[in-house]
Amino acid sequence: MNNVKKSIEPLRGFRELTPEEYKKKKFIIESISELFEKYGYGEVETPTVEPLSLIELKVGEEIRHRMFRFKDLGDRDVVLRPEGTISVARLVVNKMKNEPLPIRVSYVANMFRYDEPQKGRYREFTHIGFEHFGSRSVVSDIEVINIAIEALKKIGIESFKIKLGNEAILRKILGEANIEQKEQDLLLGMLDRGENEEFFEKLSRKGEEKILNVFRELMKTKESSVGESEQTLRKILAGFPAALEEYERVRIIENFLEWKANGKYYFDFGFARGLEYYTGIIFELYVPELSVAVGGGGRYDSLCKLLGRDLPAVGFALGVDRLMLSSQVKTAKQKSKKVGVIILEEDAETIKYTFQVVEQLKEVENLNLEIDTMGGSLGSKIERALKKNEEVIVIIGKKEQTEKHVSVKRLKDGVQKSFSYEELKEKILEFIEQ
Amino acid sequence: MNNVKKSIEPLRGFRELTPEEYKKKKFIIESISELFEKYGYGEVETPTVEPLSLIELKVGEEIRHRMFRFKDLGDRDVVLRPEGTISVARLVVNKMKNEPLPIRVSYVANMFRYDEPQKGRYREFTHIGFEHFGSRSVVSDIEVINIAIEALKKIGIESFKIKLGNEAILRKILGEANIEQKEQDLLLGMLDRGENEEFFEKLSRKGEEKILNVFRELMKTKESSVGESEQTLRKILAGFPAALEEYERVRIIENFLEWKANGKYYFDFGFARGLEYYTGIIFELYVPELSVAVGGGGRYDSLCKLLGRDLPAVGFALGVDRLMLSSQVKTAKQKSKKVGVIILEEDAETIKYTFQVVEQLKEVENLNLEIDTMGGSLGSKIERALKKNEEVIVIIGKKEQTEKHVSVKRLKDGVQKSFSYEELKEKILEFIEQ
Repeated sequence: MNNVKKSIEPLRGFRELTPEEYKKKKFIIESISELFEKYGYGEVETPTVEPLSLIELKVGEEIRHRMFRFKDLGDRDVVLRPEGTISVARLVVNKMKNEPLPIRVSYVANMFRYDEPQKGRYREFTHIGFEHFGSRSVVSDIEVINIAIEALKKIGIESFKIKLGNEAILRKILGEANIEQKEQDLLLGMLDRGENEEFFEKLSRKGEEKILNVFRELMKTKESSVGESEQTLRKILAGFPAALEEYERVRIIENFLEWKANGKYYFDFGFARGLEYYTGIIFELYVPELSVAVGGGGRYDSLCKLLGRDLPAVGFALGVDRLMLSSQVKTAKQKSKKVGVIILEEDAETIKYTFQVVEQLKEVENLNLEIDTMGGSLGSKIERALKKNEEVIVIIGKKEQTEKHVSVKRLKDGVQKSFSYEELKEKILEFIEQ
Repeated sequence: MNNVKKSIEPLRGFRELTPEEYKKKKFIIESISELFEKYGYGEVETPTVEPLSLIELKVGEEIRHRMFRFKDLGDRDVVLRPEGTISVARLVVNKMKNEPLPIRVSYVANMFRYDEPQKGRYREFTHIGFEHFGSRSVVSDIEVINIAIEALKKIGIESFKIKLGNEAILRKILGEANIEQKEQDLLLGMLDRGENEEFFEKLSRKGEEKILNVFRELMKTKESSVGESEQTLRKILAGFPAALEEYERVRIIENFLEWKANGKYYFDFGFARGLEYYTGIIFELYVPELSVAVGGGGRYDSLCKLLGRDLPAVGFALGVDRLMLSSQVKTAKQKSKKVGVIILEEDAETIKYTFQVVEQLKEVENLNLEIDTMGGSLGSKIERALKKNEEVIVIIGKKEQTEKHVSVKRLKDGVQKSFSYEELKEKILEFIEQ
C-alpha cells in the first residue's frame, strides 16, 4: 500500500530553508530592516516579474545573458528581476512625484540570475537594500556607506573589508577621449569582468595614448589606500580637471572612512561594477568567510532620467543568503518559553475548553503554545513534550473541563500543580520560573 | 537637454507599493507572523520557481491553465509557484525527516497566477500561511481554524464570515459509487467552479441514482448552520457510514465554532476548493468589504504521500494583498520621533563630525534620523524638515564641529538649545518632549 513516489527536488541553484535555517535569515532581514527604518528609509514593494525592456535599459551585458526571461500568456517579453534598483527607481519616478526630496526607500526582495551555482551563489537570492533619491551631495554618498557598515555591525559582523572605486573618475577620463556613455558602459563592463587586456586593446584602437597611460597608472593604485597615494593620484589625474574634482569628493569620503572603518577599507580606481547605471562612487563589502561580495552599491545619477525624471541617486544592497554564510552572524537568543498543551480526552467539550484555556494563555507575553495533536497515552505525550524542549505542559481532561481548572506539570523537576481557569494566566510564568 | 523617456509601466496585474502603502502590508505580515510563531509555527522558505512536474501533481485544473510557465535556460519546464502548500510539503518531506511530530511550519511568499486582474485579484500576490503535519486528529483541524480566526482579529478584523465544507464527506460518498480519486478531483473541481449542472450530468452518466440524490440534498444545506440542520444531515448521510463518521468530526468543530465564532460561520456541504489536494475539512474566510475570500485552508492527508512520506496535514493561508483592502485593518501608530540632521558647511571635517553625532543619536531608542542631503540655505533646510514632520532638527556647522557641541531646534515652538557632544544622547528625548 505504501507506494510513495520519489519526491521532486528543487531546481538546481534554488534553496529550501527549514525553520532552523530560516531563523538566521529572518534575523538578518529584521535587524537590517529596522536599521533602514531608523534612518528614514521606508520599505516599498515592486513586482518580481518585469518587462524585459525595463530591465534591459541599464542592467549591463554581464547580467543580461543570465536572466530568467520568457514570454507570458499575453505574449509579452518578461524577466524575473535580476536586481532591485531599476524597479525601485521606476516606482519613485512614477508614484512619488509629490514627496519632498530626498526620497529614501528600502526593499527586501528576491532576485533571479541563471548563474552557475557555487558557495554563496544561488539562482534565487534575497537582497535587502535601500536607495536615496534627489541628492548629489557627498553627504548622501557617506550616509549610504555609513548605513552599509552599520548594517554589518548590527548583525554581528565586525571583521569586514570595503572595496571602493569611482566610476565618475573613469567615465570622466573616457569622456575626454570623446567616448560616449554607451561605449563607456561596455568598457567598464570589461573592467568589471576582469577583461583588462580587452579593455586596453579596445582603448588603444582609439589611439588615445594619454588616456591609455592614465588607466595603466590607475590600475596600479589597487589595494593601496588613498591616504598613502594621494600625491600619486593627484599626479595621475593632473590633466583631467573633471576627474580631479571628483577626486576631491573621494577625499571627503576617505576622511569619514578613516574614522568609521579604519583599516577596513581600500580604494581601487580600476574597479567597476557589473551594473551599467553607476556614475560615481561604487563600493563592495567583503567578509573573510566568503570570496564573493556580501553587498555593494554606489551612485547612479542618470538612471532616473531614462525613466522619466532627472533625479540623482545613490544606493546599496546586501545579499542576505551570503550573509547567512558568515560565522560572525549570531542570531539573538529566544526569550520565549515553550508551553505544551495536552488534551487527555478528545471529546467536543474538552477540546472546546482546551482552546478556551489557550485563549487565556495567549495573553501571556513570551509564551509559545504547542498544542499536542498526536493523541496516544499521557506517557507518549510527555515524551514528545520533552523532545520539543517544552518547559511546562498544561494538561486538560474531562475532569479539568468540568471543574474549570487545569493541571500544569513542570518538566525540569516533574512538579505538578492545579490552577483555576481564571488564575492560570496570572500564575503560569511564575510557576515556570520557580 | 531634458529629453527624458516615458517610463515603462509595471506589467498588467502587478503592483508597486510606496512606503505609505507598504506600511499596511508590513503590519499585516509582521502581526500574523508573530501569531504563527506563538503557536509554534516556524517560518520556512521555498523556491519561487519550481519544476512544473511538482506543481502539476495536485494544483488542480482551475489553476493549471493560469500559471506562469516557461522553459529555463537549461530547457527545464518550470513555473512560478501559484500556491505555497505543495512546496512546503516537499520541504517537510525532504528536509525535516527527524523532527518529532507534529511538524508546524509557516511561510510568507509571493504567488503568481495569470488571472484577469480585478479588485483584490493580482497576478502576483503574497500569501502568509502555515501547515500542520503529522496529525489526523480533529484537534489539529480546530487549531488551524482557531489561528485563522485569531489572525484576522490580531489585525483588527472583527467582522468576518467563515464558510466551511468537508471534502472527506463528498469523497466518501463518491467513493461509494467506486469513483477513483482522480475522477473525484475532477468532479470536485466542477463544484468549485460552480459548474453544478456539469457535475450532475457527469454523475448521472454513472447511473448512481442514490449518489445523485445525496448530492442534491447536500446542495440544499448551503447557508444553513449545522446546528439547525443536524437532523437533516444525519438523514441525508444515513446510508454512508464513512461519511457519517466524518460528520461526527464536523460536529466537534462546530461545538468549538459556536463559542469562538458565534454567528460568524456557516457550513456548505456542496462546497469544494480549487486545489485538488484537500481530503477533509475545508474553509474560507470572507470580510464584508470584499467579494473574494481573504483566506482559506483545509485538510490534505494524501499530498505528502505523493512526495515521499505518508503524513496527514492541515493548513491555511491568508491573502495579504486582499487583507490590505479591508478598512477594518488599522496599522499600529508610529511611536518613533523624527529627528532631522542639518549640516551647515559640507567640508570633510564637519561631515565626519555629523556622522559621529549620528552615531550617538542612533543609540537613542525610537528616534528616526533623517540627515539633510539637499544642501541650500538654512531656511530651505528648515522648510524641508517641517514638510517631513520632523520634531527637532540637529544643526551642525563648522562652529559646532570645532567646539564639539550641537545645536538642537524644536520645530513646534522654535526653541533652540545647545548640547555638548557627550550629553546629546541623554538629553535629546527630554528636549523633544518638553
